[in-house]
Amino acid sequence: MDTVNLKDKFSLFSDYWNPKVIGEVNDCQVKAVKIKGEFIWHDHKNEDEMFLVAKGTLRMKFRTHEAIVREGEFVIVPRGVEHCPVADEEVHIILFEPKSTLNTGNVINERTVAQLEHI
Amino acid sequence: MDTVNLKDKFSLFSDYWNPKVIGEVNDCQVKAVKIKGEFIWHDHKNEDEMFLVAKGTLRMKFRTHEAIVREGEFVIVPRGVEHCPVADEEVHIILFEPKSTLNTGNVINERTVAQLEHI
Repeated sequence: MDTVNLKDKFSLFSDYWNPKVIGEVNDCQVKAVKIKGEFIWHDHKNEDEMFLVAKGTLRMKFRTHEAIVREGEFVIVPRGVEHCPVADEEVHIILFEPKSTLNTGNVINERTVAQLEHI
Repeated sequence: MDTVNLKDKFSLFSDYWNPKVIGEVNDCQVKAVKIKGEFIWHDHKNEDEMFLVAKGTLRMKFRTHEAIVREGEFVIVPRGVEHCPVADEEVHIILFEPKSTLNTGNVINERTVAQLEHI
């Protein structure tokens, strides 16, 4: 039951596209991730994902449109919906998703992070 | 897949201790709540709760200690742990918890809100 400071957690790492677990709530994990550049198109068959922007501006590309998500805003990506996160500049994101969620969803490649660090 | 702005959501209501649903992720809901004053001691038998402070300073009292949670910080209350939220001044909180979570947990009284508004 300790207080967690988001900025403190983000100060602990500098690598991109490598989510760190900062909390566990029921079957979900709270993760902090820094991103820069464009990720890959993927979806998650069984999991919704929530992206809350703590710093910067996230462009979440969908096949039909793009959501612009700024600091203090979030977007929820429902299961089965293809998406591709893009950060023109560094973006800090808080993720809420089930423990089972793989960062690359249905795609397994060199960007997949199967074992997440807890910080 | 629309972007949700937290400040916009908080601008839509002014009542205290009455959580509004602002998102659904898997089996959980994202809720916005304004609080002021002291709540009641309660616990949730089967649900962990996450309190992320968007504005102000939350004092989360536990039987053994107190967690001070400021803007940009969160605290997770594990299931079964008695707690009592206190806000000396108005505090804006984002809650992440299962849809089944009742605000007063094991206690049913005049502060219980069984049907939550979606905004």
